[in-house]
Amino acid sequence: MAAAGAETKEVENHHDDCCVQLLNPNLATMKEDVLYHFSLSTSTHDFPAMFGDVKFVCVGGSPSRIKAFTSYVAQELGLERPGADHPNICAGTDRYAMYKVGPVLCVSHGMGIPSIAIMLHELIKLLYHARCSNVTIIRIGTSGGIGLEPGSVVITQQAVDACFKPEFEQIVLGKRIIRSTHLDDQLAQELTRCSKELDEFPTVVGNTMCTLDFYEGQGRLDGAVCTYTEKDKQEYLRAAYAAGIRNIEMESSVFAALCSACGLRAAVVCVTLLNRLDGDQINSPHEVLKEYQQRPQILVGYFIKKCLRKA
Amino acid sequence: MAAAGAETKEVENHHDDCCVQLLNPNLATMKEDVLYHFSLSTSTHDFPAMFGDVKFVCVGGSPSRIKAFTSYVAQELGLERPGADHPNICAGTDRYAMYKVGPVLCVSHGMGIPSIAIMLHELIKLLYHARCSNVTIIRIGTSGGIGLEPGSVVITQQAVDACFKPEFEQIVLGKRIIRSTHLDDQLAQELTRCSKELDEFPTVVGNTMCTLDFYEGQGRLDGAVCTYTEKDKQEYLRAAYAAGIRNIEMESSVFAALCSACGLRAAVVCVTLLNRLDGDQINSPHEVLKEYQQRPQILVGYFIKKCLRKA
Repeated sequence: MAAAGAETKEVENHHDDCCVQLLNPNLATMKEDVLYHFSLSTSTHDFPAMFGDVKFVCVGGSPSRIKAFTSYVAQELGLERPGADHPNICAGTDRYAMYKVGPVLCVSHGMGIPSIAIMLHELIKLLYHARCSNVTIIRIGTSGGIGLEPGSVVITQQAVDACFKPEFEQIVLGKRIIRSTHLDDQLAQELTRCSKELDEFPTVVGNTMCTLDFYEGQGRLDGAVCTYTEKDKQEYLRAAYAAGIRNIEMESSVFAALCSACGLRAAVVCVTLLNRLDGDQINSPHEVLKEYQQRPQILVGYFIKKCLRKA
Repeated sequence: MAAAGAETKEVENHHDDCCVQLLNPNLATMKEDVLYHFSLSTSTHDFPAMFGDVKFVCVGGSPSRIKAFTSYVAQELGLERPGADHPNICAGTDRYAMYKVGPVLCVSHGMGIPSIAIMLHELIKLLYHARCSNVTIIRIGTSGGIGLEPGSVVITQQAVDACFKPEFEQIVLGKRIIRSTHLDDQLAQELTRCSKELDEFPTVVGNTMCTLDFYEGQGRLDGAVCTYTEKDKQEYLRAAYAAGIRNIEMESSVFAALCSACGLRAAVVCVTLLNRLDGDQINSPHEVLKEYQQRPQILVGYFIKKCLRKA
């Protein structure tokens, strides 16, 4: 009994160490918390019962891709429910879609920093209200590659801004503040190991540039507005490559900043749909793009399965 | 015959004057243009046949709200198709939804500047490829109000940033550039007149603050992260009010910047869901919020009907 008690205590301490934290003292005093963009509220939903067992959160831009990932993970973990679809937990809104399979929560986030930031604020509060602990969060997405064969998967080392700095700049009450975009090194290494074990597609670890725009903000020549030349573009992308950047997307910096601020172990795994040194348009056949988009799902599904086998 | 020739010429000139313009010389030399996030391409779709008659474009964040608006406009203009749903023109993707009713195109844009910017680049290219002319574009959305009764509608005079400046800042090839956020004054006046004629809900003309974040970026106290006090927040919002700002949303600045750069007559009409001086949470009953959200739709539907009657 003494031994069992000691074990319980250790488990509890471990639990306390890795709880989801908020950097906001106001939440503790609120009677109700309405997560408006999820159409969920602490007064109408029992968060600990609904989400208390969540250990993995996977997020991605497209709601249909997140739904497909949910089915894939359910199958991989042997948690399919034949004949029954996974219900969308955020069915009361069309802002985001959310599904749960055992300890895995899957949430869509739309496109761009503001859209994923709204989702993350409400997700982190959800995990806090549910008293979740030891949560790993992974963004699975698509991106433009730099100097990589299309279909390559990039595990992000550092999320950097459009000036190649590992910073997330934000305006709060009219003043610029800077946050670190640190991601979990050990998690990136574990994912890299998983990719080697899988050996199904090329995977690299590299920096990921996060921009506020898809066209001008990523140096594309094919937007409605373009005020620079092919030469200017090539110089910018080659300088990015020299700075260790291997892909460009639109969410990783705020994802890294908010997750690390709130004690979530976070990683970003994106497939590249094209090599931006060769062009701007995404015009590969639909079936090719679909197969590419499954690659981060396969890698992250394998990783989760492996973690759960060990546990 | 001579008279008819002269009339044709005049119509053509008028057409030339108000055509949708791109600020990008590269597009003219491209054999194909893939509008990736619409799942449409100039090589697989006949843009002039599909969209050549578009005179009004209405955009809003939520795909279901845009679908509801489409049905509403169809009914108002007597263009319902009994028993037939309006097909989603972007059915090949879940990034955006698009519907067309006669000369009115309705498109969803998700949340935040990056999400609406992707949509606008592709929309403006679509209108250009379709050779549309004299297009009016209106964003109908939701917002947080400052010092207004919830449910009030704000017609935007100037879109301003989080420092209250009428500017849209963007990073292009690693350098900061600033664009004007000018909106069409005459269009705002016409919409104000329509609102007076309707006389169904309070409407004001005021400045709209466009932020990159919903929580910290708008001075909310209820996000996962908050590092300031209620007093700091009140000071910021009261300074915004003093600068003529009556509501806060997340898309107007880039909407104004891109539309005015490309020759589209643009306006922003948003309802306020709450008064931010009184709180941060959107916790009005669902039915109340639903009725509020219909107000910009009713105003813009009335405006379009009136324009078409005159034409």
